Amino acid sequence: MDGDFIKVIPLGGVGEIGKNITALEVNDEIIVIDCGIAFPDEEMYGVDLIIPDISYLIDNKDKVKGLFITHGHEDHIGAIPYILKQLNMDVYGTKLTLAIIENKLREHNLVETSNLILVNPGEMVSFNNLSIEFIQSTHSIAESCCFAIKTKLGTIFHTGDFKIELTPIDDKVIDIDRISTIGKEGVLLLMADSTNVERSGYTMSERSIGNTFNRIFATAKGRVIIATFASNIHRMQQIVNASLDRKRKVAFAGRSMESISRMAVDLEYLHMPEDMLIEIDDIKNYNNENITIITTGSQGEPMAALARIAYGNHKKIKIESDDLFIISAAPIPGNDKLISKVINELFKKGADVIYEDLEEVHVSGHAYREELKLMHRLIKPKYFMPVHGEYRHLKHHKDLAISLGMDPSDTFILERGDVLLINKDEAKKEGKVKTGTVLVDGLGVGDVGTLVLRDRKHLAQDGLVNIVVTIERESFSIIAGPDIITRGFVYVKEAEELIKELKDIATNELQSCLDNRIIEWYLIKTNIKKAVERYIYDKTKRRPTIIPIIMEI
Amino acid sequence: MDGDFIKVIPLGGVGEIGKNITALEVNDEIIVIDCGIAFPDEEMYGVDLIIPDISYLIDNKDKVKGLFITHGHEDHIGAIPYILKQLNMDVYGTKLTLAIIENKLREHNLVETSNLILVNPGEMVSFNNLSIEFIQSTHSIAESCCFAIKTKLGTIFHTGDFKIELTPIDDKVIDIDRISTIGKEGVLLLMADSTNVERSGYTMSERSIGNTFNRIFATAKGRVIIATFASNIHRMQQIVNASLDRKRKVAFAGRSMESISRMAVDLEYLHMPEDMLIEIDDIKNYNNENITIITTGSQGEPMAALARIAYGNHKKIKIESDDLFIISAAPIPGNDKLISKVINELFKKGADVIYEDLEEVHVSGHAYREELKLMHRLIKPKYFMPVHGEYRHLKHHKDLAISLGMDPSDTFILERGDVLLINKDEAKKEGKVKTGTVLVDGLGVGDVGTLVLRDRKHLAQDGLVNIVVTIERESFSIIAGPDIITRGFVYVKEAEELIKELKDIATNELQSCLDNRIIEWYLIKTNIKKAVERYIYDKTKRRPTIIPIIMEI
Repeated sequence: MDGDFIKVIPLGGVGEIGKNITALEVNDEIIVIDCGIAFPDEEMYGVDLIIPDISYLIDNKDKVKGLFITHGHEDHIGAIPYILKQLNMDVYGTKLTLAIIENKLREHNLVETSNLILVNPGEMVSFNNLSIEFIQSTHSIAESCCFAIKTKLGTIFHTGDFKIELTPIDDKVIDIDRISTIGKEGVLLLMADSTNVERSGYTMSERSIGNTFNRIFATAKGRVIIATFASNIHRMQQIVNASLDRKRKVAFAGRSMESISRMAVDLEYLHMPEDMLIEIDDIKNYNNENITIITTGSQGEPMAALARIAYGNHKKIKIESDDLFIISAAPIPGNDKLISKVINELFKKGADVIYEDLEEVHVSGHAYREELKLMHRLIKPKYFMPVHGEYRHLKHHKDLAISLGMDPSDTFILERGDVLLINKDEAKKEGKVKTGTVLVDGLGVGDVGTLVLRDRKHLAQDGLVNIVVTIERESFSIIAGPDIITRGFVYVKEAEELIKELKDIATNELQSCLDNRIIEWYLIKTNIKKAVERYIYDKTKRRPTIIPIIMEI
Repeated sequence: MDGDFIKVIPLGGVGEIGKNITALEVNDEIIVIDCGIAFPDEEMYGVDLIIPDISYLIDNKDKVKGLFITHGHEDHIGAIPYILKQLNMDVYGTKLTLAIIENKLREHNLVETSNLILVNPGEMVSFNNLSIEFIQSTHSIAESCCFAIKTKLGTIFHTGDFKIELTPIDDKVIDIDRISTIGKEGVLLLMADSTNVERSGYTMSERSIGNTFNRIFATAKGRVIIATFASNIHRMQQIVNASLDRKRKVAFAGRSMESISRMAVDLEYLHMPEDMLIEIDDIKNYNNENITIITTGSQGEPMAALARIAYGNHKKIKIESDDLFIISAAPIPGNDKLISKVINELFKKGADVIYEDLEEVHVSGHAYREELKLMHRLIKPKYFMPVHGEYRHLKHHKDLAISLGMDPSDTFILERGDVLLINKDEAKKEGKVKTGTVLVDGLGVGDVGTLVLRDRKHLAQDGLVNIVVTIERESFSIIAGPDIITRGFVYVKEAEELIKELKDIATNELQSCLDNRIIEWYLIKTNIKKAVERYIYDKTKRRPTIIPIIMEI
């Protein structure tokens, strides 16, 4: 390619929620921004999580200069251990972000081989063709950053996940001065968070929840047990503050809550008197009105602490009738039913429960429309590319940019793998790189694909019918079987008659094949399968997975 | 039992959403109120729908006088065909309600054997111990009713699903006069809809959506395609009205939309000029700006018309770039992702889409808190029992009644099957009748239970490993196999090595059993299963269903 050029390649995070990762190629240097996971759809049976396909980075590994992380949420860092195993890169981030990443790498035994490089907000990292400036941003996790990437062709501004928080709990206000200066100097391309583009107005400040907590704590008679995201240290701080006012000790429940709170105290992101923090084992030593418990499970996850408490399976926390539970989070789409089940269970056991439908116990960490407009007005980019959202969000964010005066031809909605090519004359979508979704199931990374999922889905719908028979090839005779073995089809005791009929059908079909001296097993199997399938469908309107198995002696 | 008594027995609809059915027993007479279905949870793999267990009614069939239906929604009528097959009862309802039921019975070939009895709002049906008065109510379907059931001990008032709609589209205002009179005369027990008890204020009038439609239609350049619930005839009427103003013809798409709209026109619930209604086949004969299409699929259901249009699978409706889609419904919890996928798809294909997040294109049919308070104030019951809701809703509705001055001991949250016994002295929960959930899968009613679902869930998670072997009993020798056949476990081509190892492990385990002259097949199977299970888990951290199959010759 002649002259300077920039390629912007989202390898995830556009046209989907989560799995945020973008490659930014400036001449012969590539930097990667974020490296997150996505959570599986309900039809992705058995899949634990989804990571990006980084074939493009591996194919260009000599160009890759490093991985730059905007903040420490799973959808921005969760895939790092998996990706580093495929391609070792230097990882750049703020102190808290790196601490969370290191925790994660430790679980994968990757700390030794990884190179984590601290960058404070306001600092810059430079390569030959580009430099990356970390800019203080605000989001539902501390020390989130926007990136300003300087190149010969101009500056690229990536917001990361953000909201315009003017009264943050740690007083680290989003650096509007700097953003404004960068905007005034001229920005070539803006990439901005689209999550809440469908919400009008302005997000409430995180601080507003503190008032709700104070009010709720003032009347709570027993323990207060609050579920929230472990990474939301500002929320934790507000719970701690409300507890301090009411002379309550604070304990943390749930693995990620325990580890992140410990880290947050050690690194001085979470401030509390030393004697205020107690272990869950010690809550029995205090009166109920002197205890606050902060717990995982705000999404109703069945294995998390909150659900275990609700269903009576938590070893150390049993529900008492004066307990007040607060679910300080919004349900992620798809989790409503799980959360509702937990709420019902808590009420049934006599506790009181407060959640978003009833009180202001949560605010979003993503900018609403007016905040997005402010960002656009400050940055005034030449080109715009909405990121972080499903297609509907990207579309509405593009429309928002146009409503602010941008030319539609200067706005770009990219699909995963699309390349936005920018040179001194123009920006245009050009070409596509290999990308996609890699499924993680247990220890397996990528070995579960479309075929396996299709089989699981089929098995899930109507179960399984095995038809097993042993045949002597020489004599064309049935030696044993056919036996019918089912799972998840019908309860066998109730369906003895049906099973017997299936056995007869399989026997007849098999015998007729053998009588006709058909020796191609696949043909026999197909015939048996078809006959049994037809009969089952007529009788039951179900389509179980049918597996004919012929053993030959 | 001495003296007069009343038993109120919810056989469904309490502690759950849907499947509404209540038995009301007055001395030796039972009436049944509503008979709905519920939809399966996502973990109920392969289940089509859920119907109530009516063992109690069957056991007391001589007492059962009839089935009284408040309105024609699936969660109140959907189980009627299944239940009438078990216990034939007279079915009482308003004209529209019966027409919808008849349609349903026709699909099950039950019209001949069923007895549908028309009752108009304001009319009464009497038996020896009780009489049921139908009272005009308002809800998101026409001709919904409240019931006032008179007994010697007092009046029982059942709201059905309701909202206090003061400007209904058909001008049939909820009969507040009558409700107020009944309240003044004294009510023993109120049973009231709890669906929206967590929402403060008052629902918007259905009529408010008409204004939104007018505004949207005024600027639409091409076809307007609106998805809504087929049973919401008032919504249909408003779409027809907006179309009439703009000289648009109206076509209906989707099976239930076509049949209910036809019925609504025939029975004069839906009013439109004769030449305004066109067939989908004829839309090609009109300009896009003269077409409105009303379609099913507002919940994103993959097989409904809207999703088929979105994914390009609809034979007669292809998306055009000036199409404007409106999703005039709220997502039922659990459906958000399906709907979002459809919206993304429509945007991608270049259409515009309007939905609840963006505009007021839907209002709820269920009373908010202020309406519930009004109902309580009018009825002033001695006893109160919240119905139609999960536990959280029932609990909040009970609290609402208490906040209005009721004594907590006069309010009753019942679980499914609980009996509320009322006599001249008191009301109390006493005893429990057999009840539950009956799962319908294809033609099977009740043959899929906990065990089958557990198997399906297990199969769905990690697939299946069959281990098949033929053994000669006499010689304790392996004649054929063991063969390993998997489905939904790993993609076999990528896991040849693992399959080979499993074969070796199974062979070794089997051989050692045979060498030790173990002849109990179940013991051999258990040993093989355990060995293979352990190996798979260590290697993959997965737990597929393992089925050892031994054929014996």
